[in-house]
Amino acid sequence: MLILKTITEIKNFTRKAQAQNKSTGLVPTMGYLHPGHLALVKKAVEQCDLVVVSIYVNPLQFGPREDLAAYPRDLERDSQLLQATGVDVLFIPSDKEVYPSGHNTTVTVGAALTGKLCGSQRPGHFTGVATVVTKLFNIVRPERAYFGQKDAQQVLVIQRVVQDLNMDTEIIVVPTVRESDGLARSSRNIYLNPAERQAAVILSKSLQLAQKVWQQGQRDAATICSLVIAKINTEPLAKPEYVQVYAYPDLQAVEQLNGTALLALAVRFGKTRLIDNLILEG
Amino acid sequence: MLILKTITEIKNFTRKAQAQNKSTGLVPTMGYLHPGHLALVKKAVEQCDLVVVSIYVNPLQFGPREDLAAYPRDLERDSQLLQATGVDVLFIPSDKEVYPSGHNTTVTVGAALTGKLCGSQRPGHFTGVATVVTKLFNIVRPERAYFGQKDAQQVLVIQRVVQDLNMDTEIIVVPTVRESDGLARSSRNIYLNPAERQAAVILSKSLQLAQKVWQQGQRDAATICSLVIAKINTEPLAKPEYVQVYAYPDLQAVEQLNGTALLALAVRFGKTRLIDNLILEG
Repeated sequence: MLILKTITEIKNFTRKAQAQNKSTGLVPTMGYLHPGHLALVKKAVEQCDLVVVSIYVNPLQFGPREDLAAYPRDLERDSQLLQATGVDVLFIPSDKEVYPSGHNTTVTVGAALTGKLCGSQRPGHFTGVATVVTKLFNIVRPERAYFGQKDAQQVLVIQRVVQDLNMDTEIIVVPTVRESDGLARSSRNIYLNPAERQAAVILSKSLQLAQKVWQQGQRDAATICSLVIAKINTEPLAKPEYVQVYAYPDLQAVEQLNGTALLALAVRFGKTRLIDNLILEG
Repeated sequence: MLILKTITEIKNFTRKAQAQNKSTGLVPTMGYLHPGHLALVKKAVEQCDLVVVSIYVNPLQFGPREDLAAYPRDLERDSQLLQATGVDVLFIPSDKEVYPSGHNTTVTVGAALTGKLCGSQRPGHFTGVATVVTKLFNIVRPERAYFGQKDAQQVLVIQRVVQDLNMDTEIIVVPTVRESDGLARSSRNIYLNPAERQAAVILSKSLQLAQKVWQQGQRDAATICSLVIAKINTEPLAKPEYVQVYAYPDLQAVEQLNGTALLALAVRFGKTRLIDNLILEG
């Protein structure tokens, strides 16, 4: 596995491979890899001739009061985890490489997709995501890029950017990978103390409840949200930030869910903010 | 010359040519072609194997009180003008093709470049330009794209986008083409009545004055602007909107011009707004 740090190097490398008709897959990550990331990598290795994993903790997608400085980093462990996976290139640019002096361009998706859920709690977050993903796609020119369903709104924003800016990259969405007790894998799980870690299982349990009432025919958005919130609140350490249901994939507000819907939630455990979601197939 | 109207068609066409290592040049225009555009086309034909001209009056770069509906259009004349030039493809997408239902992504360059000159007079204008140019570059994937120096701030914004979003396109800037009396060629010149047309020569005359005092050693920005405004005001039909000097190419405000500077102006003649500029080489 080649490790490249500059945009010039990785552009040269991928352009050469692409001139030989090799299909390129990109797995953009912020590192501190877990089995969720490795599921993305596995899919990419199956589908592409050349696989690039990027590790970059993108400051533009963190708010001023968020956990940029604390975000877990362990590059040595990450590269060891990737060694045996079949990844061809690990791209680890510096901040100066991604946002050199004078950088002044952003990519923004409008409020219909970004003015709700995490977008309303984290102003500027999705502009940061859309900007860095646009840059990475222009740098690597992947035929396919891989993202986890755990970040459901992020997936919708990136699909929107690719479609609207007429990019050639196909977005492959990989199901959420969970711990054995149901907790969605996240680099931020490391923040949880043992009590919070145990409490956090309430997220997947509340989604399972929603899935059950959905299968029983419940289609009232407010009722589903209330049931989920009540379930989360049975856990004293859990502080719900939002629990919401929207039509999927356009995230339109709906009272009665006639088609497919997204149930998404963000819950705090102490200082740690976790998200999870469920697509209710209509 | 092939005429293509859909993004799928032109993507297929350019990708095939690029797979055969043909270099592609793009000349993005809003049509109603004049010798300024044809100078861009000539340069592109000299430098590239495959030349694409796009004609699209981009609604996103017009403000609600601007001349979108009135903007001159003559596709038949435009295609005749291009016939003998060596252009390979004329791309004329519809609004629905460029901005289909649900389109919700924009590309924005920050205020350091866009919060002054035309950017402060035309809010949202450069976001419209940056967005459509990003789309066109992703569609055509040109090795080079051609823009006129007449739109000096537009050139700087597009260069910023290309650099910041890590695109592979080189921006080629072609000198302003002028009428025999000095008026910069513009599709909007057609709006001028005969008296206004005669009056509009004051723009290039005022720039010539600035060039003269610059050569004589004048480096005080305010003095140069005052001289230019006074010259413009000798013409009763001319209503200056702005006359400003900034350091070039970063558009920083400076009182004493130590390096290269951009003198840019926008002046109204009746309902018609004309721009022109001069780079003062330091």
